[in-house]
Amino acid sequence: MIIVLRKNISRKEELEVLRAIKRLGYKPHIMRGVARTVVGAIGDERKNQSLEALSAMPQVESVTPVQKRHKLVSREAHPVNSSVRAGNVVIGGRKLIVMAGPCSVESEKQVLATATAVKAAGASILRGGAYKPRTSPYEFQGLGEKGLKILAKARKETGLPIITELLSERQATLVADYADILQIGTRNAQNFQLLIAAAKTGRPVLLKRGLSMRIEEWLLAGEYILAHDNPNLLFCERGVRTFDTYTRNTLDLAAIPILKQETHCPVVIDPSQGAGRADLVSGLCKGAVAMGADALLIEVHPNPSAAWSDAAQQLSIDGFARLMTDLQPFIAAAGRE
Amino acid sequence: MIIVLRKNISRKEELEVLRAIKRLGYKPHIMRGVARTVVGAIGDERKNQSLEALSAMPQVESVTPVQKRHKLVSREAHPVNSSVRAGNVVIGGRKLIVMAGPCSVESEKQVLATATAVKAAGASILRGGAYKPRTSPYEFQGLGEKGLKILAKARKETGLPIITELLSERQATLVADYADILQIGTRNAQNFQLLIAAAKTGRPVLLKRGLSMRIEEWLLAGEYILAHDNPNLLFCERGVRTFDTYTRNTLDLAAIPILKQETHCPVVIDPSQGAGRADLVSGLCKGAVAMGADALLIEVHPNPSAAWSDAAQQLSIDGFARLMTDLQPFIAAAGRE
Amino acid sequence: MIIVLRKNISRKEELEVLRAIKRLGYKPHIMRGVARTVVGAIGDERKNQSLEALSAMPQVESVTPVQKRHKLVSREAHPVNSSVRAGNVVIGGRKLIVMAGPCSVESEKQVLATATAVKAAGASILRGGAYKPRTSPYEFQGLGEKGLKILAKARKETGLPIITELLSERQATLVADYADILQIGTRNAQNFQLLIAAAKTGRPVLLKRGLSMRIEEWLLAGEYILAHDNPNLLFCERGVRTFDTYTRNTLDLAAIPILKQETHCPVVIDPSQGAGRADLVSGLCKGAVAMGADALLIEVHPNPSAAWSDAAQQLSIDGFARLMTDLQPFIAAAGRE
Amino acid sequence: MIIVLRKNISRKEELEVLRAIKRLGYKPHIMRGVARTVVGAIGDERKNQSLEALSAMPQVESVTPVQKRHKLVSREAHPVNSSVRAGNVVIGGRKLIVMAGPCSVESEKQVLATATAVKAAGASILRGGAYKPRTSPYEFQGLGEKGLKILAKARKETGLPIITELLSERQATLVADYADILQIGTRNAQNFQLLIAAAKTGRPVLLKRGLSMRIEEWLLAGEYILAHDNPNLLFCERGVRTFDTYTRNTLDLAAIPILKQETHCPVVIDPSQGAGRADLVSGLCKGAVAMGADALLIEVHPNPSAAWSDAAQQLSIDGFARLMTDLQPFIAAAGRE
Repeated sequence: MIIVLRKNISRKEELEVLRAIKRLGYKPHIMRGVARTVVGAIGDERKNQSLEALSAMPQVESVTPVQKRHKLVSREAHPVNSSVRAGNVVIGGRKLIVMAGPCSVESEKQVLATATAVKAAGASILRGGAYKPRTSPYEFQGLGEKGLKILAKARKETGLPIITELLSERQATLVADYADILQIGTRNAQNFQLLIAAAKTGRPVLLKRGLSMRIEEWLLAGEYILAHDNPNLLFCERGVRTFDTYTRNTLDLAAIPILKQETHCPVVIDPSQGAGRADLVSGLCKGAVAMGADALLIEVHPNPSAAWSDAAQQLSIDGFARLMTDLQPFIAAAGRE
Repeated sequence: MIIVLRKNISRKEELEVLRAIKRLGYKPHIMRGVARTVVGAIGDERKNQSLEALSAMPQVESVTPVQKRHKLVSREAHPVNSSVRAGNVVIGGRKLIVMAGPCSVESEKQVLATATAVKAAGASILRGGAYKPRTSPYEFQGLGEKGLKILAKARKETGLPIITELLSERQATLVADYADILQIGTRNAQNFQLLIAAAKTGRPVLLKRGLSMRIEEWLLAGEYILAHDNPNLLFCERGVRTFDTYTRNTLDLAAIPILKQETHCPVVIDPSQGAGRADLVSGLCKGAVAMGADALLIEVHPNPSAAWSDAAQQLSIDGFARLMTDLQPFIAAAGRE
Repeated sequence: MIIVLRKNISRKEELEVLRAIKRLGYKPHIMRGVARTVVGAIGDERKNQSLEALSAMPQVESVTPVQKRHKLVSREAHPVNSSVRAGNVVIGGRKLIVMAGPCSVESEKQVLATATAVKAAGASILRGGAYKPRTSPYEFQGLGEKGLKILAKARKETGLPIITELLSERQATLVADYADILQIGTRNAQNFQLLIAAAKTGRPVLLKRGLSMRIEEWLLAGEYILAHDNPNLLFCERGVRTFDTYTRNTLDLAAIPILKQETHCPVVIDPSQGAGRADLVSGLCKGAVAMGADALLIEVHPNPSAAWSDAAQQLSIDGFARLMTDLQPFIAAAGRE
Repeated sequence: MIIVLRKNISRKEELEVLRAIKRLGYKPHIMRGVARTVVGAIGDERKNQSLEALSAMPQVESVTPVQKRHKLVSREAHPVNSSVRAGNVVIGGRKLIVMAGPCSVESEKQVLATATAVKAAGASILRGGAYKPRTSPYEFQGLGEKGLKILAKARKETGLPIITELLSERQATLVADYADILQIGTRNAQNFQLLIAAAKTGRPVLLKRGLSMRIEEWLLAGEYILAHDNPNLLFCERGVRTFDTYTRNTLDLAAIPILKQETHCPVVIDPSQGAGRADLVSGLCKGAVAMGADALLIEVHPNPSAAWSDAAQQLSIDGFARLMTDLQPFIAAAGRE
């Protein structure tokens, strides 16, 4: 930790800071500059308590950590890319994986039609929400377990593994019984109890980025999964909230090269949530593939304008097939299959 | 709902939209303008399904709701201010209520010392976290039930009702057994399962604003409490996330007059989280009181620079006493006690 | 400056950094920690070139300045509050100053009516835009010099000094000939050539905060005024841009205590732009006064719903008079006149 | 325009609104819904005054425009892509154009070395700043006209057209005498007087997006160029400001497909400013090319760690050459040369 002291403090006030540093288990190292005195606190920031408490002392101007706080998810800890297996699909290998399906599970017919079609177009995993987190209590909240059963049936018929959202600690076992991958949604990205519950099921976890989550906070939320003994973690960028009103969210594609530097875990991009508009999905997928995403998560509906949730961002089945064709040259350029 | 059609669409495409509007239970009303055709969809937006699905049709440019979506929390539904009772304290009445105490419960000694001191200085409710949501899994996660017992002991000794955070659906009953008010933290503000679990305990719920939550989303999260038969809801502004780096969050004090227009529920301000800096707490409290806040939620610690969490934003006991004195003229100016 | 080196770099790579530090005029001071090596660079960051260039070296993880970059506007440089005089009005003294008037100058009749009324209600300075920065080239761009002449006439009749916006370097002399205070708008807050031109007129300058300006950037923009030999600077908070859509901007009232710590210059609050809604102006003014603002800048129009710009945020003349009455207890509580 | 009236207003209050609509040149059309009455105002929103003033009436809940405000830059006005010529280089054609060079012009040697190298690697246009907008008045402000002469010399030696920033209305003619393209920086993106001055030189104008500019505001700023009779406009996305601290800005690559829908003008991406980190430039370029950017604007310096400004984001000459090679497959995949 680096502690910058305020100007014009007395020797006594300085000593108080040094004592506090020692009390918290660090060795202080003084450096007198032209304008300020700086104290380096030597010690392991992960083992010792944080020195940020020192910023409460009036003689301290700022406290800056030196070490990064994420550990198990970091590339330092695990220099080689890790990969995550769901059924017989590997995410994080040479093959670009496409997960596709409706926003909400609405009926068996809707899910089976979509599953068959997205599989034919090249998708490897089926997505669909059985439990839906909705801004208003009066909106459709998902079919619940009935939806899970429909997804399982679609898996049986098509062989596609399924990914579905987990909303509640109390449903972790139930949802894990049906799902191949558990999705943690953006509004729950720092619901740490839910992260722990998901980790403990042993299923792979896809962790969406929170609405206004900094990269470091996201890595640390992922750290909760690995720290609870589940190594199967996928980070999924789905757009952050900004001032812009043209799109629902601002998809931060720079997250791909950043995550590739910071972590060994695979990176998934959700262009459907990322824009909130079907007409931008194709462009965003091209960018995501070129920039090195390991997988895409795309909303597809047999009849978007009759969808029960997020209609504006779902592709039609034809639109999805066209997209898969359009992506081919970019997948090849990125050295993927 | 107002549906704006794209330019130069055919009569047939227009009819498709009208049919879709009728299918969803609304009566379409066409208005031909100079540049665009606009369709008003007459019908109850709360009873019928949303027309937003229509934005998936290529001939539709935009869909705008006319009705507000919050209902039970709205002032339209309940024109008079509501108030919330915790023990013998009433929040939302003429008296400005101050809730004070440490960020985390660390020990019995720490809590009792703080409780006695804040009571003497004029606080009416004791705050303290037994379960702590922490960005990193390696940080102190709270004392858990032991912390709840300490808070209960402090209540017994001082008579102060207690407010403490609920983190997990599975702990709702346990925490409600000890607490007079359940706090829902900013990272769980759209953890709807937790909101429902909190509502069902029957305890008053203080709902902090999410990190980048729009006013309407916040009102709708509150709506989850009232819609699950718990009328005892407090909205608590605690700063939103912006681009600024000087403070941890940007306290949106305009939320006070806005909430006073939109809802009947009491409004609480948390200046400690709102700034993340003890030196700004006094200024922010003055503003909050002048602007009509019903209560303040303030972090106080007997020795901030040794605090186990959020040291930089906690007031010392002396600092809190000074603050309470400094606030008197503003409380009087606001017509409060 | 504090330079954190990457892990596992060679001794040779470390020496390259030390040499670069010396070349830029600093003395390196090495501190070996548990996880990282940190180098303090001793030297005056304001006189020497910034070391931020070192962050381009692959062996450098981060570079953090220790000194603040603002100098003349800082409280360190000038511990006592400064005040700014416009005509016979002093901003920054014991009296709370209210600047009021229409968003745009539309006609002599409109301005004279407003000026007379706001003076009667207690305003000390007349505001009004003769040159208007408009998002679209097809919107009303202001009356130009004709507008300035109308303002001058209103000053003659009422004795109120006038504040008006400067949009163009080329008009600096012209506008300064008429105005008592030059306003720099939010979209020009980092138009440094305009800041310099404004400073050189010698007139007091009111510098609005940019749409997404950090506090430090704002202080440094103000530094441009003082560094060009004009000590008469007012900082004006007018709301920043966030994700929220309920109000046009988010008024950052915490800027008042922050600026009072960091700078000696007076602080002005613009609640009209800050909310973009007339119905929130009164609440925001109460907060601003309680928190220590030196002046308020308020839009008032004889007939808001016929205003040529920003109608929604202008108070009527009656509304303004009511506001001035409502503010009295808060002005007294803040120890002002 | 769509005007939503408040609930429970009297017939008389409703008539006042209708009269106001007529007075402003529109024909009102009433639509009575279940919860609200909505009035459509029929008329050309671009020719008539805006009805937004009506939002100042207490009986009006909201006013929403129906027409988009940008005209000349819109795809509706000019369905085919436009292209911009600088020297013998065409931006907006089949060839992907790369503009490269140092952030600041520092010396003849530096610029000539960079120009020769970037040309050899495949760049078509030379960039370099002679006038630099700097956050602090104490930072290097550019070599001024001397810098322009150096750029002109580099053009003469290499044949590369040059792009350089215009900071001041008063220098418009001078800079236009040297430059092939005038760059308007992010901090001046709504400095409308500068936009007009740039337009009037007749030179192509590259308009960077403002720090927190909405898409519509950006299109309207571009509209200032075309409305002042200069059809040679390039939109340049360079990252927006968000809450994230990992990168300097958040590059909004979705702006590419959005601009391609909304405008006929070419789209340029600046990944150097967009990330503020050289190590992310390659990834961002791949995404930009795949998503359909017409040109890239890249900072290159012979010795980044000795650069006088923005060192961290400049590529070395080797790094740039590698980037140009790495981009080839993506350029081909995008159907470009």
